[in-house]
Amino acid sequence: MSFADMSVSPSNPSISSNLSGSSLLVAWQLKGKTVLIVGGGEVASGRIEAVLSADAKIVILAPAKGLHPRTKRFIELCPDRVTYYDRRFSGPAELYKMDMVLTALDDPSSSRQIVELCREQRIPVNAADIPDLCDFYFGAQIRDGPLQIMISTNGSGPRIAALLKSKLSGALGGYEGEAIRRVGELRERLKERAPGIGGAVSRRRMKWMSQLCNEWDMEDLTQLDRATIARLLDEGWEQNRVPSLRDLGGKPKVKQGKDNPQSTSQDLNTIPHGGSTVLPVTLGFIAGGVSVALLLMYHRR
Amino acid sequence: MSFADMSVSPSNPSISSNLSGSSLLVAWQLKGKTVLIVGGGEVASGRIEAVLSADAKIVILAPAKGLHPRTKRFIELCPDRVTYYDRRFSGPAELYKMDMVLTALDDPSSSRQIVELCREQRIPVNAADIPDLCDFYFGAQIRDGPLQIMISTNGSGPRIAALLKSKLSGALGGYEGEAIRRVGELRERLKERAPGIGGAVSRRRMKWMSQLCNEWDMEDLTQLDRATIARLLDEGWEQNRVPSLRDLGGKPKVKQGKDNPQSTSQDLNTIPHGGSTVLPVTLGFIAGGVSVALLLMYHRR
Repeated sequence: MSFADMSVSPSNPSISSNLSGSSLLVAWQLKGKTVLIVGGGEVASGRIEAVLSADAKIVILAPAKGLHPRTKRFIELCPDRVTYYDRRFSGPAELYKMDMVLTALDDPSSSRQIVELCREQRIPVNAADIPDLCDFYFGAQIRDGPLQIMISTNGSGPRIAALLKSKLSGALGGYEGEAIRRVGELRERLKERAPGIGGAVSRRRMKWMSQLCNEWDMEDLTQLDRATIARLLDEGWEQNRVPSLRDLGGKPKVKQGKDNPQSTSQDLNTIPHGGSTVLPVTLGFIAGGVSVALLLMYHRR
Repeated sequence: MSFADMSVSPSNPSISSNLSGSSLLVAWQLKGKTVLIVGGGEVASGRIEAVLSADAKIVILAPAKGLHPRTKRFIELCPDRVTYYDRRFSGPAELYKMDMVLTALDDPSSSRQIVELCREQRIPVNAADIPDLCDFYFGAQIRDGPLQIMISTNGSGPRIAALLKSKLSGALGGYEGEAIRRVGELRERLKERAPGIGGAVSRRRMKWMSQLCNEWDMEDLTQLDRATIARLLDEGWEQNRVPSLRDLGGKPKVKQGKDNPQSTSQDLNTIPHGGSTVLPVTLGFIAGGVSVALLLMYHRR
């Protein structure tokens, strides 16, 4: 397994041996953009949800008789952001002012025609089920507030991506999204206190934030409310140190990670939050106890 | 936690409550494309690796004195795909024939100028450390062959993304990339046998492949070599069924998942491969047995 952004010491710039065969995974920004979706079936409904979640406006072109119930719901739910036309794609004029185009049709030749028109106008385009025509692919996704995880198999196995999604979801504790939201808030407050883009102040901010995220348990970051953030900036940033949550009057959660000596191993860190080791240990304990009891009782007879 | 592509029954089209605040995560395709990278420092070197891995050609603009050792290595390693100019960005002509532009400069005003030129020409652009200027963000990444996982915090916490990367890496078994590669190969062979895009044959292929991925353990998919694939197509696809690996003469790996009745719960499926449930159960069993034995021995005295 190789890590695309592994850190490397300048003296030994190790390079991944496999510089090919992957995609460039990116988080595309759609706020204030308009996306054309051609098709209204089940696949289209998934696209519509993803694009709406990314704050885009949407134009849907699809005959009403083929609309999936979810597509209908999105049209009803978001009249301010979704414009629906009960017809097929009619020609190049449909692409006017579009920032992205997604087709989800059961008709490859129509998709191909739309993709060619998009190429001429440099509009990013995805045609569902026809990877050769796509500027980009979608993958299975996990979302928890500001946290988004995409699992891409580079077109090789959508079902495996879905299976991995369940596996990885289970490895999360459920508090990560909230931790990220709070850290984002802290970063904003810090930028107000020590403004500037680039240069020394930017580096110092980045270093201090990193140190905080390294030293605090992720679950404890969820306790960064307004008052705690203010104290953290006063007693931490201003004095060039990273106080603990306890220093700031907070109560650390029961640790799964850093404070628990068992969890220093990489393997155990991956056990999902919520006592999943407790159950097998307990079951084993009971089974062992009962077995020995039965064995001894049998011997005594 | 919400799942962007959760399946929904048509009769009850449940809709995620939070249709905003996220990015559109996509796997961008760069094969045959050219990417301009402005800057050659540490951040640029990470961009260069990601873009080279996605099979793009690269033009780097950066004064030689600021090159990171890894940037230098990439320039040396891939002379056929990397063109390097020892100078700064000079103006709009640099964008000629570029499909994407990434800046990684310690100078926000230069970045801003480059981004504006890109916008005029509809070239997707990312300016490191200036989220407001970006068409797309990067995230922490895990790669294992054709498997790529991106962790995005929507700009709120790059350090948390890195921490989550270690956590999620640990939840993987290390065989997933190989399983995906083999499944991709099977899909290719299946398409040769039953060609066609869209329509009934496409749906039947998709259904059969899904069924296979659901019924086989992921680790067993790594055993899909050329001969096994041929038998699987003959004895499975042609007869409209999914034989097990054992049916095909293969030897299933020791199961952590489907064959173990304990593991039918969603939670236990997430425990990483490698005996992590076996160990706690065994320890519990021994502890339970010893406790009861001691207790009974104590009573007998």
